[in-house]
Amino acid sequence: MVTILFLLPEFRLAVVQLHVTKVKADNLSRARGLIKEAAAQGAKLVVLPECFNSPYGTGFFPEYAEKIPGESSQVLSEAAKESQVYLVGGSIPEEDDGGKLYNTCPVFGPDGSLVLRHRKIHLFDIDVPGKIRFQESETLSPGSNLPRPKWHPIPYVVKSNDISYCRVGVGICYDIRFAELAQLYSKKGCQLLVYPGAFNMTTGPAHWELLQRGRAVDNQVYVATASPARDETASYVAWGHSTVVSPWGEVISKAGSEETVVYADIDLQYLANVRQQIPITAQRRSDLYTVNAVQEG
Amino acid sequence: MVTILFLLPEFRLAVVQLHVTKVKADNLSRARGLIKEAAAQGAKLVVLPECFNSPYGTGFFPEYAEKIPGESSQVLSEAAKESQVYLVGGSIPEEDDGGKLYNTCPVFGPDGSLVLRHRKIHLFDIDVPGKIRFQESETLSPGSNLPRPKWHPIPYVVKSNDISYCRVGVGICYDIRFAELAQLYSKKGCQLLVYPGAFNMTTGPAHWELLQRGRAVDNQVYVATASPARDETASYVAWGHSTVVSPWGEVISKAGSEETVVYADIDLQYLANVRQQIPITAQRRSDLYTVNAVQEG
Repeated sequence: MVTILFLLPEFRLAVVQLHVTKVKADNLSRARGLIKEAAAQGAKLVVLPECFNSPYGTGFFPEYAEKIPGESSQVLSEAAKESQVYLVGGSIPEEDDGGKLYNTCPVFGPDGSLVLRHRKIHLFDIDVPGKIRFQESETLSPGSNLPRPKWHPIPYVVKSNDISYCRVGVGICYDIRFAELAQLYSKKGCQLLVYPGAFNMTTGPAHWELLQRGRAVDNQVYVATASPARDETASYVAWGHSTVVSPWGEVISKAGSEETVVYADIDLQYLANVRQQIPITAQRRSDLYTVNAVQEG
Repeated sequence: MVTILFLLPEFRLAVVQLHVTKVKADNLSRARGLIKEAAAQGAKLVVLPECFNSPYGTGFFPEYAEKIPGESSQVLSEAAKESQVYLVGGSIPEEDDGGKLYNTCPVFGPDGSLVLRHRKIHLFDIDVPGKIRFQESETLSPGSNLPRPKWHPIPYVVKSNDISYCRVGVGICYDIRFAELAQLYSKKGCQLLVYPGAFNMTTGPAHWELLQRGRAVDNQVYVATASPARDETASYVAWGHSTVVSPWGEVISKAGSEETVVYADIDLQYLANVRQQIPITAQRRSDLYTVNAVQEG
């Protein structure tokens, strides 16, 4: 979770739906170019896709994994600084000092500093017979090993005394299936949840938009997702359709399947209005939401 | 929450989208007729709409309110018994011994017994300027006053040693906006959540189906809603579109706006398959879902 300062209650978000190839240097340079393009269009916060520097697949992760700081995070840091944006750096395969691999999202501030990193806490292990089987846990570890002092699997808050700010909660792809993470971020004051993610041709049409709209309406937050562009020749075909959803649950921006940048204006005053109109936060019955409250008969 | 026994992992559910008028006796007799019709179509569980015996409106609740047992619950008990079904009796305005009013769902077994009642725990108090303002709390109390010994605001479980059963969690309308209630029912083993509800012409198109599909996919349960039919002449115009959603998040039955009965086959084996394919229950990171887990930076 990161706190971003703005002078107005509205700011422009850009989602970069990058076409990811097997050539890491090419992925990095095109990402950098599109970040620059987004900044030129007024974006203050730019989001890259999950696994944007590497093809998505358990066989690729060991080969493409890097330390943080490392080559890719250096490029992201420079891109954030040169474009003066907050940059949610999608995710990259990360290797820690002990050789363990993670699916990690680094976030950079406009000064180029790494303001947080989120290691995917829910690994993507599913098996829908005849449709899609994928087991991230074959090569990745979940984000809970606390490999460094002060490192925490749920991103921390950058505090500020400024008036106008937006708190952003970061998850990666499969993390979005777990309502609890979004609820936690919401309780911590997030107004925007960002999920770099690469749903596929089975779960994409079934659940990608539904999960985003559900998180948005249940928590009355903006939700943004960033997918790689669809590549039918890849071993794992991403659904694409990066999306931004309003706190009312409406899709306000949505990409097709090709490489593109989509924009949305995040309006924190509108968010406040929605929360006033349907005041579910104040109306929650936390006194009753315990397993013991259900009487066995 | 009620546990229903079946000899097979599949059973038929019927949702009665009743046209509710100002004539209580007429509402009751038509409901009874449609329950009979549903049973003749093979339904083992029948669901009526929110406020099915009274127009929906704070001005109507005091006039139509009854004790339980009372006239309406007597009709429901007889209807359940004569049709040999489990009957989720939508909701009725209930008056307790102290004169307080509730929006209450009584549930009856095939023997005509009252197996639970759920008093709406989240009252519908919203204000969307120029669109819809409604304050149930003007005349109703929320279900938490525990007016009787052994009465509990969250319905209890009817236990059984039988092999094939379905646990059903009951909420009323606005209760569906609160993900926590569905999560709680899910933790308690529910495979089906039933919400009699009367969304309106603003929140209906925006959120009715989204909320149901969200509850279904997040908890991998069936979700059924029962709305009154739309009546453009009523002071509160219900959206209609009673719906049943599968644990995969798909709409499997959906009414239009008119009076009708819709059916869905609830397949507990299919539900088990979905939970095996995308095993989010086992993958939850409850170790991390606490506010303290978010480190302040």
